[in-house]
Parts: sequence; structure tokens; C-alpha cells
Amino acid sequence: MKLNENYFNVSDSYLFSAIAGKVAAYQAAHPQKKVLRLGIGDVTLPLAPAVVSALRAASEEMGKSETFRGYGPEQGYLFLKSAIAGYYKERGIRVDDGEIFVSDGAKSDLGNILDIFGRDNTVLIPDPVYPVYVDTNVMAGRKILYMNASRENGFLPMPDYSVDADLIYLCSPNNPTGAAYSVRQLQQWVDYANAKGAVILYDAAYECFVSEDGLARSVFCAEGAKTCAVEFCSLSKMAGFTGTRCGWTVVPERLAQGKANKMWLRRQTTKFNGVPYIVQRAAEAVFSPEGRRQTAENVDYYMNNARVIAQALEELGIWFTGGKNSPYIWLECPHGMDSWQFFDYLLENAQVVGTPGAGFGVNGEGYFRLTAFGSKETTREAVARIKDLLSR
Amino acid sequence: MKLNENYFNVSDSYLFSAIAGKVAAYQAAHPQKKVLRLGIGDVTLPLAPAVVSALRAASEEMGKSETFRGYGPEQGYLFLKSAIAGYYKERGIRVDDGEIFVSDGAKSDLGNILDIFGRDNTVLIPDPVYPVYVDTNVMAGRKILYMNASRENGFLPMPDYSVDADLIYLCSPNNPTGAAYSVRQLQQWVDYANAKGAVILYDAAYECFVSEDGLARSVFCAEGAKTCAVEFCSLSKMAGFTGTRCGWTVVPERLAQGKANKMWLRRQTTKFNGVPYIVQRAAEAVFSPEGRRQTAENVDYYMNNARVIAQALEELGIWFTGGKNSPYIWLECPHGMDSWQFFDYLLENAQVVGTPGAGFGVNGEGYFRLTAFGSKETTREAVARIKDLLSR
Repeated sequence: MKLNENYFNVSDSYLFSAIAGKVAAYQAAHPQKKVLRLGIGDVTLPLAPAVVSALRAASEEMGKSETFRGYGPEQGYLFLKSAIAGYYKERGIRVDDGEIFVSDGAKSDLGNILDIFGRDNTVLIPDPVYPVYVDTNVMAGRKILYMNASRENGFLPMPDYSVDADLIYLCSPNNPTGAAYSVRQLQQWVDYANAKGAVILYDAAYECFVSEDGLARSVFCAEGAKTCAVEFCSLSKMAGFTGTRCGWTVVPERLAQGKANKMWLRRQTTKFNGVPYIVQRAAEAVFSPEGRRQTAENVDYYMNNARVIAQALEELGIWFTGGKNSPYIWLECPHGMDSWQFFDYLLENAQVVGTPGAGFGVNGEGYFRLTAFGSKETTREAVARIKDLLSR
Repeated sequence: MKLNENYFNVSDSYLFSAIAGKVAAYQAAHPQKKVLRLGIGDVTLPLAPAVVSALRAASEEMGKSETFRGYGPEQGYLFLKSAIAGYYKERGIRVDDGEIFVSDGAKSDLGNILDIFGRDNTVLIPDPVYPVYVDTNVMAGRKILYMNASRENGFLPMPDYSVDADLIYLCSPNNPTGAAYSVRQLQQWVDYANAKGAVILYDAAYECFVSEDGLARSVFCAEGAKTCAVEFCSLSKMAGFTGTRCGWTVVPERLAQGKANKMWLRRQTTKFNGVPYIVQRAAEAVFSPEGRRQTAENVDYYMNNARVIAQALEELGIWFTGGKNSPYIWLECPHGMDSWQFFDYLLENAQVVGTPGAGFGVNGEGYFRLTAFGSKETTREAVARIKDLLSR
């Protein structure tokens, strides 16, 4: 038996374990100090009442013969696909039910989608980046090209026609940088992909945080995207589903001469058995008027945190992206510190934990990520400490 | 962009759509006739009260700040892994927490596990077979060898040392045949795999139906299995989780010189985000004393159906396997009919629907699958009709 040797080329990510180690060591040495965490990418607010109520009702259904549900369609129940189609329709985007695949989260599908593409494709990935794009392609032995995201391009790299790419990862609003493409910028990517015969794998997991006009909330707001893009979206951040697990993937009927949609359906019916019925009912509740209102309140709560962080950085004169249409704030480390130096400086002098940008790629060096997913109180106190420290 | 061309070699399964088409046509032509279905592989009894109560409690937890859960460990919460380890311990099998990976079902993991193995492996698959084993390997472009399961070997093929296989699929009790390996037979497979350096992918999804002594309920009851086998199990049939989605995979620490376990962990942390917290709590409840009692009652209910079917076939003098340690009954079509002829005969003359064995592989021709997952009433009525028809 031969193992998949590509796995031995996947680099181990020590980022979060390194952070945890440093924080634990600091806390052990200074047990009286209160450490505040603005580094996490996980939500903290509980599920909305409308969602809990749907979970409860669906659980009851599963306990009665007349309403019990066994195997459902692998691609998701129509009641949820229709709700998702309605969500797109509000934004003037038409997505057919057959193009929507309910998933257990964007991460699964972002990895699994690679199944339907040949190994012999060149992959284009921005740096810094969510590590899953890189690791899944290394596991499959594909050639990876990186494009530079930097302060110069506002961490929003644009297409370069001299580069031939087959699969292109875009994430907007971006993790980790929080930078968000405008519709016009995205149109340039769609035009490039169509010209090159490439496919954009578009991670829209943070679209709900976009508030400014003119910014893209879906790749399908660009003309021609249906022939060159797959979109991955998730209820994780939109509705606090990080531990409840539901998202969706849109594979347009017209992509790859109609082949990609059928192949993905075949992949899912063969290697997946659908999302739990009760979770699909919970997801449906997110799209109810009550659910929309309640989850929007949660998004507002986090965006208030983001605003507090952003405002402080503006006052301190520190360059950053994100924080306006994203729960992530990506800042340039002050005083010329590198990412880990700033991490240590902040931990030791303000007892605030963030994430060193260098952990997300070469171009992340010298940058630092703060997140808005903490509580209001923690965020305010952490920001006060940062302001105090950096304005000394 | 290049598609994965191996997908074009996957044969479309028309089995269940062909059945549905024939039944619909018959029903349209004979609207007054009541068609009874003994063909489905899905459970019909609702979730046990202990499970529903756990779902309800976990849903409430998710609605409160103090008890809300975000991202969990991709490989599953310790509370559930410990419960699963305890389930093995009852049978005298030691499985460490680190060897257990909680999954959203056996089907997902049976497909996804192939990620950690190279493409250049020869796969050995019994015929007839659950189509997922074949399709997932065709999708990856692997070489497949088939081994014959037939009436001669009781549909339990044994190892042939002249065949060199790298990955071996075993499913016991078997879907579709219901045949179950004894511990001694399984030991021969484990010895073969260790001798060849092969890996057994052991599908134990139906282990809970085994009642006779001496039959295997886990591959790990064979000595040496920890160096050559991965086991896939599921709550789908054991606890009616077909629409709730939870199972587990055991990847032993010692498999492939300790590499396989780490690679599967890397795969899951990269392409999976874990099973919903509420579902893991529901699964934990299956292993509580109350849950065990309630789900055992459901298994008994189905096995009573199986007994009713088996008894009738014995009385009719029809050869079959399964039905004693399995919810599936695999019978030889009477009067020399082929699988589809018998399907039509049964539908037209008794209005009973089963599954033609030919749909599961070449060796399934001339055989037919009935399942015990219907209601008691439906099963009894269908059996009465079959007896009446075939004893004429």
C-alpha cells in the first residue's frame, strides 16, 4: 500500500499552537494579569432565538413516526435551497435551486471541490492567505503560484494577464486582511478568468459584513461569473454556525460547458450524505424575517467592535485594512516591529493577544490581525490598553 | 482548467431511479393497488426519546452565551469519543481516543479516506457491492480488482494469496447480501493484509445487527488488525441517524508505521470542521444506558421483521443469506428468473417492491434484496403476499 506522498509536503501550521504556547507561558509567569484575546476567528454570541426554536421544533419532529426524516437529498432540502436562492434574489442575483448545494461549511467544500478538477492545473493563491487553499492543493500535488497582496495594492491583488492560472482563489472580504473587492475590481477578475478559461473559487464566507455600496457580496454580481466561478458561503459568521455547521456552494449550470455542476452533484451523492435535517431547518430559520433581524443584530454587534478597533488605529495613525466591511482588522505593526515582535510587545505590555500576520504567508510579515468576534467589554478594554500603550 | 477526467469513467447508477420509474408506471396503471416497499435501505422508526431529549438540551445550550459552542475539534468532542471507546471496550476491544474520528457518516469517510492513499494502489472489492467503494476509486483513477461473492462461498469471499491488493474493502454484515464474516474468517483477511502490506477498509455500519456468537462485530476482534485496518461505523442504522448524520472512523495509531493516523487527522483538520455539537450530544445519548436500551429495541423491531421474511423464505425453500445478523435478506430468485424478471413478477403479482441484485454487480444477477426497515405491518403483509404468490 502506498500513502499519498503529497501529504509529506504539507507544512505543519504551528501558528495557533505557537500563540497558545506563548500565552500560556506568559499567564503562568504572571498569574495576576488578565489576558484579553482579540485573536480568535470564532464567534462568541449564541444562536439567535429563531434558530434555537427551529432546532427544537425539528428535534421534536425527528422523535415522531409521522414527521421523522431519514436520508435527505445529498445536495440539501428544497426548503433551504429556496431560502438561499431568495437571499441572492434580494441582491438581484439569480441562482437556480439546482446550482445550490447545501454543505456542512465552506471549509469542507473548499477542499472537496478540488476532486472534480484534474491534478494538472495551475493554482493561483493570494499571499497572505487562509491556509486551507494552500494545504488542500499541496495534498493533491498541484502547482501553486502566489500573487502578492500588499499595502501597495491595498491587499487586493488584481489579475496579471502574463500569468496563466487554471484555478484562482479569491476571498472577499478577506481572511486574514479584511480587504474587500469592489464590484468593478471583481469584474476584472471575472473577465480575466473567462479569457483564460480559468475557474475562480470564490470564498464569500464574510459577505454579510459588507455594508458599503459598490463592494462585492457575491462573485455573481460580476457579469459573466456564471461561466467561470464557484461560490462558497457559510452561516458560520453570518449566524454563528461555527459549531452548528451549515453553508452552501453555488456551482453554476453553465460552468465548464455544463459539466462542473453534474460532476459536483456526482461527488456529493457519492462521498456525502447531506447536512442533518435539524441543522437545515435551523439554517432555514436564519432566512426567516425574524432570523434575518436577529442575526443582523449579531453582525452589528461585531461590527461595532470592529469600529471601536478601527477608530483607535486611526487615532494612533496606524495603517490598516478591514474593520469596515469585515470583522478582521489587518494592521501594520508600529515602530517597524515584525509580526512576532509586535505579538510579544502587545502580550507583555498590554496583555492583549492578536494573530501575527507572518503566520498567513510571506507578505503577512510586519502585519498583525485583530478580530471583532470578542465581547463588547473585552474589545473595549483591549482597545483602551492598546491605545494607552502605543500613544505613550 | 482541466476537469478530473476519471469522473467520466464513473458509471451512472440507474438502479434506484429505474425502480422508482417502474413502480410509478405500475401505480399509474393500477391506481387501486396498494404497493408495499421492502426495497429501501433507510430506517423508518423515529429517533429514540433519549436522543431527542439530548438534541433539545443541546439546542438550548447553543442559545445561551454561557453554554454556546463555536468551532469544536474536527475529530470530535472527547465526550463522544470516550463513549465510543466504551462501546468497543464492552466487546473487549481497546481503541484509544486518538484513534477515533467522529464523522458525519460512514459514506463520507469511506470516500474521503482515499485522500491519504496514493493513486497507484490496487483496490480489491467484492462483487456484489455497495457502489460507493467502486465509484470513489474510479473517480481517483485507481485500478480495481473484483473478488467473487457467490452462493458457493456464502457471499463471503476469502483471501487469495495469488492476488496482490493494496486496499481491500470488506463490509460485514454485508450490504447488499446480509452475509456476515465469522471472527475466524476475518482473521484470515487480517493475516492476508498484514502479509501483503495491504490495508483493509472495513465497513461495520451494520455491526449492531449481529446476534450470533462467533461472528465479527469489528475488524479489531481479529489479532493484528491494528496494523492493517481502518474501521468505519455509523449510527445510521444502529440509532436511526440516517437524517441526523453521525458516525465514526477508527484509524489505528500503528497503521502504516504511525503515519496513517496523523495523515487522516491532517486531512480532517484541513477539509472538515467537525460534526455539529448538537448532533454529537445526540450521539453521546445513544451510548447512555437509556439510549442503549431504546435503540436496541428499535434494532429488535427491525430484526423481527427480518425473521418474518427469513422464515417465509425457509418455508418456501428459497435459498438466502442474511436476515439473521443483518437487516438485509439476499435471496436467489425463484423459478430461474433473473433479478429484473423477479422484480417485475413481484411488483405485478404481489405489489411488493424489492431491489434487483443485478444492480449491485455482476454476481448479483439472479438474486434479490429485501430489507427489514419497513414497518411491522407492511412487512407482514408483504411477506403474506410473497408466500401466497410463490406457493401457488
